[in-house]
Amino acid sequence: MALAQLLSPYQQRVDQCLREALVRWPSADHELQQAMEYALLLGGKRVRPVLTYLTGEACGAGSAALDSAATAIECIHAYSLVHDDLPAMDDDALRRGKPTVHIAFNEATAILAGDAMQTLAFQILTEPLAELAAPRQLQLVAALAQASGAAGMCGGQALDLAATGKQQTETELATMHRLKTGALIQAAITMGVLCGSDEAQQYQTDFAEFGAHLGLAFQVQDDVLDVVGDTQVLGKPQGSDSAAEKSTYVQLLGLDGARMQMQHLHDKALQALARIPYNTDKLSKLANILLTRDH
Amino acid sequence: MALAQLLSPYQQRVDQCLREALVRWPSADHELQQAMEYALLLGGKRVRPVLTYLTGEACGAGSAALDSAATAIECIHAYSLVHDDLPAMDDDALRRGKPTVHIAFNEATAILAGDAMQTLAFQILTEPLAELAAPRQLQLVAALAQASGAAGMCGGQALDLAATGKQQTETELATMHRLKTGALIQAAITMGVLCGSDEAQQYQTDFAEFGAHLGLAFQVQDDVLDVVGDTQVLGKPQGSDSAAEKSTYVQLLGLDGARMQMQHLHDKALQALARIPYNTDKLSKLANILLTRDH
Repeated sequence: MALAQLLSPYQQRVDQCLREALVRWPSADHELQQAMEYALLLGGKRVRPVLTYLTGEACGAGSAALDSAATAIECIHAYSLVHDDLPAMDDDALRRGKPTVHIAFNEATAILAGDAMQTLAFQILTEPLAELAAPRQLQLVAALAQASGAAGMCGGQALDLAATGKQQTETELATMHRLKTGALIQAAITMGVLCGSDEAQQYQTDFAEFGAHLGLAFQVQDDVLDVVGDTQVLGKPQGSDSAAEKSTYVQLLGLDGARMQMQHLHDKALQALARIPYNTDKLSKLANILLTRDH
Repeated sequence: MALAQLLSPYQQRVDQCLREALVRWPSADHELQQAMEYALLLGGKRVRPVLTYLTGEACGAGSAALDSAATAIECIHAYSLVHDDLPAMDDDALRRGKPTVHIAFNEATAILAGDAMQTLAFQILTEPLAELAAPRQLQLVAALAQASGAAGMCGGQALDLAATGKQQTETELATMHRLKTGALIQAAITMGVLCGSDEAQQYQTDFAEFGAHLGLAFQVQDDVLDVVGDTQVLGKPQGSDSAAEKSTYVQLLGLDGARMQMQHLHDKALQALARIPYNTDKLSKLANILLTRDH
């Protein structure tokens, strides 16, 4: 099964949900609304929402709950990209081959759009759901907040900024990645389980382990592709990480070492998945396809 | 009763809760943690938390629920100040007489600290509370998100930026203020009621009206004080709003007209409060003291 074939139905679904959220909770300011639309509907693989859908479907979750969780997590991811691209952060002018939000609009609007997209994520999760009790909805809010904040994504981004120009150990690099991107990938999976049956909750630890290994494997792979990939295919200049003086797995472990580490993490992810007595075929397929991509 | 006497016990309480939240949910990055502490514990009148406490006490709310709501709303307010002060926004180097976060730290850290402080607000609201059922907690998250996002505070800030250098009508000015600062003041009160008894929920509309009028009255007063106040007492250069080419109530209505408008809003706020059959003496005292201050 090709990646596009697996992802496409879920991508369309989350795109539709994001469009609906922008209509359901419109901005008071026209430009802010446009900037949020631009940032939320720019495309991308939508890996996090897809993980939520696939996990939730394995756990017997209802579709409305999954739409809510998947849309919220993509709002957080999209806001983080808008802020990461700002001049004071990574100073990127292009994202997916198009001007970043602060270039297409302006810096103030990009800051506010990111802020409002974070808020929108939590707002989406508060919509009453017939199929999910309030205590479980509150756990969804908690899981997303835990993964996004100072002990998660924001903390990881701060560690990344602090490490620029310094040599990190493998442990430091792993900690940074586990927070900066891993926390949200893991939350996508945790939230999928939270949308599922009561029985499914007992497998949260196994799902979380799958998510943690998968998330880190993506990062090791990113470092590998950054060295061997082609600029045009990746959509960002090849070797941009080393140019920005950031530690990478390839630099620490060598290209072959990094590839072995990725395979090790991939194996561990699939082992965790194998402990779960549900149909997790699509999740393992997604992991296999994503971790063998060459761009 | 002097303002300090009325506010002080609640200020100390929310400061203590903020300190505890920073320990309870520490950042993964040392500098990010320090920036969040700096921004959250810099002081200020803590008007929003105090409104939550006073409203909640009038509505029979438990203290743990009020601590949670008050702390969350102050996190949102504090994050908005950090982002508003950024060079791309209002470009302020001083806040309460001290260097703003991007000056004391750096711009990237200020962006991330603001982001993580917003997340922290929602995280605080998800802590299980014995005295408040999950559906009501979810309503607290919803109320805070509604007030903070694109249809509330962020939207108002965007309208404010869009209006810089343009002449606004009184209606446009009121809409901007109702969102930029009014929405959060109103949410502080709404959240206080949400922490209260089931019976108290029927007075949400009256409390909301009190909050809406009070919030706008503050803004009119700010415009008045900006003209007649003294730079040293206010802690920001006198006339800074007119210098930044922003429309003000004084400019639209004249000094006496703005004062009359403030009195009118103050009266309406007290009328709304009078319809509520609880002891709202402290709330009306707070409104009276705040709206007759000369700095």
